[in-house]
Amino acid sequence: MRTRAAVALEAGKPLEIMEVNLDGPKAGEVLVEIKATGICHTDEFTLSGADPEGIFPSILGHEGAGVVVEVGEGVTTLKPGDHVIPLYTPECRQCPSCLSGKTNLCTAIRNTQGQGLMPDGTTRFSMLDGTPIHHYMGCSTFANHTVLPEIALAKVREDAPFDKICYIGCGVTTGIGAVINTAGVEIGSTAAVFGLGGIGLNVIQGLRMAGADMIIGVDLNDDKAEMARKFGMTHFVNPTKVENTVQEIVNLTKRGADQIGGVDYSFDATGNVKVMRDALECSHRGWGVSVIIGVAPAGAEISTRPFQLVTGRVWKGTAFGGAKGRTDVPKFVDWYMDGKVEIDPMITHTLSLDEINKGFDLMHAGESIRSVVVY
Amino acid sequence: MRTRAAVALEAGKPLEIMEVNLDGPKAGEVLVEIKATGICHTDEFTLSGADPEGIFPSILGHEGAGVVVEVGEGVTTLKPGDHVIPLYTPECRQCPSCLSGKTNLCTAIRNTQGQGLMPDGTTRFSMLDGTPIHHYMGCSTFANHTVLPEIALAKVREDAPFDKICYIGCGVTTGIGAVINTAGVEIGSTAAVFGLGGIGLNVIQGLRMAGADMIIGVDLNDDKAEMARKFGMTHFVNPTKVENTVQEIVNLTKRGADQIGGVDYSFDATGNVKVMRDALECSHRGWGVSVIIGVAPAGAEISTRPFQLVTGRVWKGTAFGGAKGRTDVPKFVDWYMDGKVEIDPMITHTLSLDEINKGFDLMHAGESIRSVVVY
Repeated sequence: MRTRAAVALEAGKPLEIMEVNLDGPKAGEVLVEIKATGICHTDEFTLSGADPEGIFPSILGHEGAGVVVEVGEGVTTLKPGDHVIPLYTPECRQCPSCLSGKTNLCTAIRNTQGQGLMPDGTTRFSMLDGTPIHHYMGCSTFANHTVLPEIALAKVREDAPFDKICYIGCGVTTGIGAVINTAGVEIGSTAAVFGLGGIGLNVIQGLRMAGADMIIGVDLNDDKAEMARKFGMTHFVNPTKVENTVQEIVNLTKRGADQIGGVDYSFDATGNVKVMRDALECSHRGWGVSVIIGVAPAGAEISTRPFQLVTGRVWKGTAFGGAKGRTDVPKFVDWYMDGKVEIDPMITHTLSLDEINKGFDLMHAGESIRSVVVY
Repeated sequence: MRTRAAVALEAGKPLEIMEVNLDGPKAGEVLVEIKATGICHTDEFTLSGADPEGIFPSILGHEGAGVVVEVGEGVTTLKPGDHVIPLYTPECRQCPSCLSGKTNLCTAIRNTQGQGLMPDGTTRFSMLDGTPIHHYMGCSTFANHTVLPEIALAKVREDAPFDKICYIGCGVTTGIGAVINTAGVEIGSTAAVFGLGGIGLNVIQGLRMAGADMIIGVDLNDDKAEMARKFGMTHFVNPTKVENTVQEIVNLTKRGADQIGGVDYSFDATGNVKVMRDALECSHRGWGVSVIIGVAPAGAEISTRPFQLVTGRVWKGTAFGGAKGRTDVPKFVDWYMDGKVEIDPMITHTLSLDEINKGFDLMHAGESIRSVVVY
């Protein structure tokens, strides 16, 4: 079949909207009509050329929602008409990682996915002249139709709006999951969130859900504070306006008998390795847990004195918020429908596929939280 | 009163054995006759001058065992004749850290202890000419008698031999505690231990106690392997004899369906920040936990790519093995008396106080695991 897609022909160039060929689903695969897709910083990271593992030409996009059109041989858990969210972190429930119960990082199709291929080592997309086009993060939601492995699709309820729940395919789950799955924040905790963009706001709403007492947002841009407060931020620190960000947060959290200070949990949603260090070091001696969410530039390294860890701080990271996609994503959709998770105010722009490059422009200009393309 | 002590007069010089003045215990303090003390790398770290927080003159030593001679006003949990192990990490059971239930890093007397003083801001030791001599890690076990706060003494059973259980005051508890308190190793785990000295051997025996399947020891010195095997090491890697230590460990741990490899838990007992990085990076994608035990040189920093954490590894540290001294140390003594914890083969040398500098020489020459001074 043919479908319309925004194709990344080369690094640093705008996407090109064009007709492409799409082969039907092979065994274990599913053809999905994408109804909506968010534009995430990770797409931008790859498109810009900064991602050393970026492959071109490819069809980017990994934050989508759609409807099953056709299933390949042996697919048993999905049927045409099912509503689905593509998963860049699949959940096969069979590999040592899934079976460990300790991680969401399913390894069933990791190698081929990393090479922009379906599990059989080929692509389903091609140019009209036959040139193969690579898949991206196993999803390629910047196409009106795409093919995914069955294990990379979460089946969700049919009354949920595609143009909102697509955001659960990455940003919402990553931010809230970092709080509830990776950090395991308890009621009454104190926390700091570095970076108040699309991920940071979801960390903040996750902290509110988890019952944190004190939610300190950190951003260089004062304008970000207003929206963050709506999602639950209680205190705001602009690093350009204080002498020492770490000390400022430590001072803010000295409470009652505790005159040591430091947050119980901190989260980096910036991708800046210096900020990651601040996030660790503003966490509480003895038990502070700092979670890295942001993706750092190629080659960048985090560092600190080992004393920070020896005195009880824990440094960890999260991918897709530690969520097991097929299990957890439908739950997040329920939470959205129940009003427990807020998404609508974060979708600041809705675009057509033809306007997709405008979504990247809005991101660069810092004008959007999330732009969503509706097909 | 007067007592005999090995005094550190200045950095880089041998200890001097001399008579010193010792004031009796003030309120909340206890006078202890030290019966035996281990010589630990941390004493050497301070004596050498490498410790930026080292204070001179001082009486070093923090791994002792002895008998209560006299208690100060208000002391209720100890009486003359009680057998005790001094605690450089006290347990007041009242401060926010103790009450958190999340850390052993009691903060009740942290400030004065760091300054080489008793909680009232003075020293009990002085030269015969009246010059004050500082306490060290709140313990100063290189003196035949010493004064400690009540909260810094663990009461232990009276049938346990001082010249063995003194080692529980630091090395044994640090190594085993890192496994059972900080890492929480489960039966069937795989683990790597970097550095097979006095701490590393105790990590290994902790792993054996915890039921680890595979215990990989790493040391530059092949001669360390024999003793480590006696304590439970199952595999040995000498970094000078393999191309890449991390890859070697990853390959060793590829088992069955798991062809990713990496240990479930790793421990640094070297204090070398490059080794700390290797320890982190040889741990398993998705769930590996790496624990820093070693004390790094002043100013040294650990570093890694944040990707290591984002893909599920956890970096943490431990002090005194995460043990709550008054609660846990008596339990470790029981375990020793029950034969559950082995200490005797690690005490390779027994010295008199007059021979204490020989203990440091043996350490430098790598000939001892632990030298113990018996008074």
